Amino acid sequence: MGLLAVTWPKCLKKHLPLKLRFLHTLKDHHFDQILMSPALASLDLPDIWTPNSSCQSIPALHKSFNQQTAEVLDGKSISAEIRSKIADEVRHMKKHLGKVPGLAVILVGERRDSQIYVRNKIMACEEVGIKSSVTELPADCAETDVQNAVMRFNKDPSIHGILVQLPLPQHLNEEKVLDALSLEKDVDGFHPLNMGNLAIRGREPLFIPCTPKGCIELLIRSGVKIMGKKAVVIGRSNIVGLPASLLLQRHHATVTVVHAFTENPEQITSKADIVVSAAGVPNLVRGNWIKNGATVIDVGTIPVEDPSCEDGYRLVGDVCFEEAVKVASLVTPVPGGVGPMTVAMLLLNTLTSAKRMLNFT
Amino acid sequence: MGLLAVTWPKCLKKHLPLKLRFLHTLKDHHFDQILMSPALASLDLPDIWTPNSSCQSIPALHKSFNQQTAEVLDGKSISAEIRSKIADEVRHMKKHLGKVPGLAVILVGERRDSQIYVRNKIMACEEVGIKSSVTELPADCAETDVQNAVMRFNKDPSIHGILVQLPLPQHLNEEKVLDALSLEKDVDGFHPLNMGNLAIRGREPLFIPCTPKGCIELLIRSGVKIMGKKAVVIGRSNIVGLPASLLLQRHHATVTVVHAFTENPEQITSKADIVVSAAGVPNLVRGNWIKNGATVIDVGTIPVEDPSCEDGYRLVGDVCFEEAVKVASLVTPVPGGVGPMTVAMLLLNTLTSAKRMLNFT
Repeated sequence: MGLLAVTWPKCLKKHLPLKLRFLHTLKDHHFDQILMSPALASLDLPDIWTPNSSCQSIPALHKSFNQQTAEVLDGKSISAEIRSKIADEVRHMKKHLGKVPGLAVILVGERRDSQIYVRNKIMACEEVGIKSSVTELPADCAETDVQNAVMRFNKDPSIHGILVQLPLPQHLNEEKVLDALSLEKDVDGFHPLNMGNLAIRGREPLFIPCTPKGCIELLIRSGVKIMGKKAVVIGRSNIVGLPASLLLQRHHATVTVVHAFTENPEQITSKADIVVSAAGVPNLVRGNWIKNGATVIDVGTIPVEDPSCEDGYRLVGDVCFEEAVKVASLVTPVPGGVGPMTVAMLLLNTLTSAKRMLNFT
Repeated sequence: MGLLAVTWPKCLKKHLPLKLRFLHTLKDHHFDQILMSPALASLDLPDIWTPNSSCQSIPALHKSFNQQTAEVLDGKSISAEIRSKIADEVRHMKKHLGKVPGLAVILVGERRDSQIYVRNKIMACEEVGIKSSVTELPADCAETDVQNAVMRFNKDPSIHGILVQLPLPQHLNEEKVLDALSLEKDVDGFHPLNMGNLAIRGREPLFIPCTPKGCIELLIRSGVKIMGKKAVVIGRSNIVGLPASLLLQRHHATVTVVHAFTENPEQITSKADIVVSAAGVPNLVRGNWIKNGATVIDVGTIPVEDPSCEDGYRLVGDVCFEEAVKVASLVTPVPGGVGPMTVAMLLLNTLTSAKRMLNFT
C-alpha cells in the first residue's frame, strides 16, 4: 500500500533557500531600486515538507488502543446536531418566505477527491433542505468558462452561496476566478476582503472559512479553553492554516504558525496546548510532537490507496493517530473529525447568507 | 518623572476573561443559536498589559554601555539613504511629467503626539519634493466632516496618498472613516482588502503598512536572515503587530504573536531569533526576555514627561535598551530606529502610488 501524496527528495528542500536568495537578487532591481526588500509575491514558495522518514512503519489501521488516554472528538455527531438545527431553520424559512437557501458548486476537471467532496456537500445540502446546483466543467476549459459560470450564479437570486471546488487545474488562475465571485455569496470566505476582515480586530468578515470555523466550534463544544493558550497551527495554506491562525488569535490564543521552512517544528509543536494540523502530510505529527494533555485537531485529509476499501482508497490525516491518543487529552479522528464540521459550516454559511440577502431573521 | 502611558491595575486583567465569558453567553443567543462560537467582534478586548513592576527602577537615560555587545541599528542614516533615492525619483518624475507625488494628511483634534508625527511627515515630504496638504479638524467634529475631507482628497488628481492620523477621537468610527478612503490612495495600507492581500500567499497588496515595511527593510539591510528563523511579534495592533506578523510570515519566519493575554510572554520571547516589539508599554521587554544574540526591533514610541527636554517629554520604547544591548546582537534605539524608517516608507508608498496612478516607470 503506497502513499499517493507527493513526497519530495530531502535535497530539494535544502536547495530552496538558495533559489530564493537568487530570486531576491533578480527581483530587487526589477521591482524597486529604492528598497532591498523584495516584492512579496516573489517570495512565495511551495511548502514542501520533508517526508517523515518513519511514517511507513506506523500501523496502517487504528487497532492498538491499549494505552489510549485521549478522548476522541466525534465530529460526525457534533456536526449532525448542527445540521439538524440548520434543517429546522431552513424549514422555518420555507414556511415563512416560501424560499430556501441555494448553494452553487463549480467543479472543474475530474479529480477523484474533489468529486467526492462535492458529492458529500451536495448530499448534505439535500439533507437539510438547501437547494444545490452543480456545474461541472472539463479539465481543459478556459478561465472565462469558469468566470462565466461564477457570474451566472452571482446574478441568480435563488443562489446565496457559491463555491469553486479547489484546487483548480494548473492552467487556471485561482485568483482571477475567486475575484469574480460576489462577496456576498463567498461562503468559503476566501475573498481577500473577507480574509482582511477576519484578521483585523474590530471587524467582522461576511463569512469565516468553513474548516477553521468548524475547528473552533469543535474546540468550544469540547470545553477547550482557547484564551491565553499556546496554539500551534501546522501549515499556512490560504484556505486552512492562514484563516485558522487568524481566528485562533481573535480568540486570544498565543498562536505560532509552523510551516515547511520552520526549524525544529516538533520542538515548537510539543509546547502547544492546542495543535491544529493542516499540512496535508500523512503522519507528519508524531507522538513526540505532542505535549501531554494537549488538544489535537487533525485537518489533514489525504487519500491513500487501499484496495480493501470500497472506493479503492482511504483517508488519512496529518497526525499519527495511534501515537497521539496516548499523549493528547483530546484528538480528532480522520475521517469523522474536522471533515463533517467543514461541511456543516458550509451549510451554515449558506443559510446565514440567505438570511442576510432575504432580510430574514 | 512619571510615565504618561496609561497603566492598569493587575486585578483588572485577571477579571477580563470572566467578563469575556459573560459576553459569550450573552452574544451566543443574539447572534446565532446554531453555533456556540461567538461573533468575532464580540471577542475584541483591549490588550491591557500588566505594567512591568520594576520599570521605574531602570536608568532613565542611556548611559551605562559598559557591557554592550549589540550593534545599534541606525534607522536615521538608513532612512536618510532611502529618502535621498526617493528625492532623486521625485526630481526625475518632475522633469519628465511636470508633476510630483502628493500626500494628504487629515489630523483630527489636538493630540500633542499626533501633531508632532504629522509635522515630521510633512517636513519629510518637503525634503524629498513630495507635495503635502494637511487638513486639521477640531476634536469635536462629526464623522461626516472627516469622511468629506477624505472624499475630497479621493477626487483630487494631484493627491496620490491619503493618511488619516490615528488614533481618532473616541466618538469617531475609525472603520467608517478608513472605509471611505480610496483603495488606490491608501498609503498606510490599513484597508482590509490590502490587509487580506498581505496575508494571502500569491497576492500582493497595493501598499504594505509603513512601520512593518520599515522593520523588514531594516532587517534585510542589516543582513538578518528571516527565513526559517523564530520571530516573536509583541503586540497585535491592526496597524503594526498584525501586519508585521503577516509580513514576517510571507518572508518565511516562524512567527508567534505575543499579546496581553499570553501566558509567560518572556519565556516565549526569549526563544526568538527576531523580536519585533510593538506593545506600546515602556520597558516591557527586559533583558531576560531576549535570547543571546537575537535581533530586537523596538517599535514602541511612548512619550514620557521629561522637563529637561525641549518639548517637555521624550520618547521611550518597549524595550529596556540598557539591558537589551548586553544580550542582543542587533537592537534599534528609540528614537532613531524604526520611527525614521516608518516615515521613509510613507514617502515611498506615496511615490509608488503616484507612479502607478500616473503610469510612470
